Amino acid sequence: MSGQVKAGYARALDIRRGRVDLSHGGGGRAMVQLVRELFARHLGNTWLEQGNDGTVLPPISGRLVLTTDSHVVAPLFFPGGDIGSLAVHGTVNDLAVMGARPLWLTAGFILEEGFPLGDLDRIAASMARACAAAGVLLVAGDTKVVEHGKGDGVFITTTGVGEAHPHCTLSGSAARPGDVVLLSGTLGDHGMAIMSQRENLGFDTPIESDSAALHGLTAQLMACAGADIRLMRDPTRGGLAATMNEIADQSGVGVLLDEAAIPLRPEVAAACELLGLDPLNVANEGKLVLVCAEQAATALLATMRAHPLGRAAARIGGITTDANHFVQMRTQLGGCRMVDWLSGEQLPRIC
Amino acid sequence: MSGQVKAGYARALDIRRGRVDLSHGGGGRAMVQLVRELFARHLGNTWLEQGNDGTVLPPISGRLVLTTDSHVVAPLFFPGGDIGSLAVHGTVNDLAVMGARPLWLTAGFILEEGFPLGDLDRIAASMARACAAAGVLLVAGDTKVVEHGKGDGVFITTTGVGEAHPHCTLSGSAARPGDVVLLSGTLGDHGMAIMSQRENLGFDTPIESDSAALHGLTAQLMACAGADIRLMRDPTRGGLAATMNEIADQSGVGVLLDEAAIPLRPEVAAACELLGLDPLNVANEGKLVLVCAEQAATALLATMRAHPLGRAAARIGGITTDANHFVQMRTQLGGCRMVDWLSGEQLPRIC
Repeated sequence: MSGQVKAGYARALDIRRGRVDLSHGGGGRAMVQLVRELFARHLGNTWLEQGNDGTVLPPISGRLVLTTDSHVVAPLFFPGGDIGSLAVHGTVNDLAVMGARPLWLTAGFILEEGFPLGDLDRIAASMARACAAAGVLLVAGDTKVVEHGKGDGVFITTTGVGEAHPHCTLSGSAARPGDVVLLSGTLGDHGMAIMSQRENLGFDTPIESDSAALHGLTAQLMACAGADIRLMRDPTRGGLAATMNEIADQSGVGVLLDEAAIPLRPEVAAACELLGLDPLNVANEGKLVLVCAEQAATALLATMRAHPLGRAAARIGGITTDANHFVQMRTQLGGCRMVDWLSGEQLPRIC
Repeated sequence: MSGQVKAGYARALDIRRGRVDLSHGGGGRAMVQLVRELFARHLGNTWLEQGNDGTVLPPISGRLVLTTDSHVVAPLFFPGGDIGSLAVHGTVNDLAVMGARPLWLTAGFILEEGFPLGDLDRIAASMARACAAAGVLLVAGDTKVVEHGKGDGVFITTTGVGEAHPHCTLSGSAARPGDVVLLSGTLGDHGMAIMSQRENLGFDTPIESDSAALHGLTAQLMACAGADIRLMRDPTRGGLAATMNEIADQSGVGVLLDEAAIPLRPEVAAACELLGLDPLNVANEGKLVLVCAEQAATALLATMRAHPLGRAAARIGGITTDANHFVQMRTQLGGCRMVDWLSGEQLPRIC
């Protein structure tokens, strides 16, 4: 056996026509080749290249913020993004809304045998672009392969490490009656982008996912009036309704939303109407809900609107005293309705 | 709508007879119920109960070590463990072999619609026991559900955060000619436990997985002679052969193993013989490979043997000068053979 054979992959990975097979998850030479020629080509950096069982990273001075999310979105590619960018944005946003500075990500890939390497390459490239834009590095990863029919293309679990803001006390339990609820933009774009692709709805204006990294916006908001921000959330699965109900429960308060103030794209409203969905239940992947003290609301809203991801920001309601912790909404017709979270599942595999 | 209805789940989750459905991943009430009544019942702690998008943790003083692994083992339950304990041990061990103190874990669950809640409950209980034994806390989690036929029961991706040993410089590239290779015990137990269950091999003595947390053993070894340890690895997927080839490549050295010195259970040897597998390629989940300076080998071996997880430890070879970075083995018959890593996949979904 020659050194060439030992060291080498006589043939490079055929990314254009090749497919994932079980050997790519086996811990042997094929897996090393997949990591080197596909993942590391896009996502490589000095941390990832340590090549040990764990990655040793510099100390961080403050408290640590940790979050994890598995991504199983179907379809894998959709207007405005793909599972790769979504997996980065989702985890960056979970750190950002905690007021933390996102630093590092890890990613675990579960691949289905037969998945086209070309699609995996697109996903890795998309993750790399999203990481670069968000200023985070992927520092550890893992790849497993399951038999055809035991997975669905690719699932990605990302975990994020961030550094907490030194004075930050954001928490779902910090909302108080009299506080103001701000929303950074239109509701339901991500969910309806997925649904209209899945249902083959052909709108004149295709609906694009709002998938985006919110860390820049949240940093500006923290700098503007961090001490007056009670909490931030990104209303993903379950939509604004689930987020506001969680806040109401955790803080022991009520919420009163103002339907007329909630920004909504006409095409999203139309798609929701068609599919019988309430936009308040539909997932967002680049939107921010912020609860703050009344005194800071105007400044924070202006800060949102000055940011590219917050141009359509609005003051959409307020926190009330309510022993039942109800979320209610003043409707455009002048009535008032309950905003409950869904008990079941309208939109499977939205993220 | 009464407060009782809003707050409550009229019926508790039927863990004995219930099954996962798509609503359990939807971000709504059903998901909250699954998290509260199943996951939190076993795994709850003050960090997990913060209930925010990210978990805020105390600062750690040293460098940070980060690792991630997706677990797709089939079957989910096997002699000596299950996917839950394996997911904890695998990630704890990746931190431990870096010389780090394991602190926190996150877990992302991808569940298949129809998976019995009773099995999920067993898995969560097993994770909780493994976390307690390893002295780590699960501080963040996520649950997604995919349609029946798009997954395989449950996949678990665990990410681990540890604190690096202050003076630790362990690295796959640190091995030097003249160094000694120690192995903490018998080879191939985990892989053959899985394979014999999968192939329905009925041995008189059932083979048990060696799945175990190595952090206690590694801490004692670091305390014994940390400065003389070049690197530690847990030889999982790809087995000892893959691990030694990685080390040879990363350090630019050769390896010479001594077959007669490698501990092997007779039942594992027999099962490997039957299935045509080389025990050097078979996965371990509670074994440690350690490369150290010759001067510390005797003390480190004694430390291993004094630990319950290292009773069968042995000196199994040494590091050589070899421009080709070959791993070779002196066989019991007196010859010498190449130990290559597998190019393909013999043992899919072993971890």
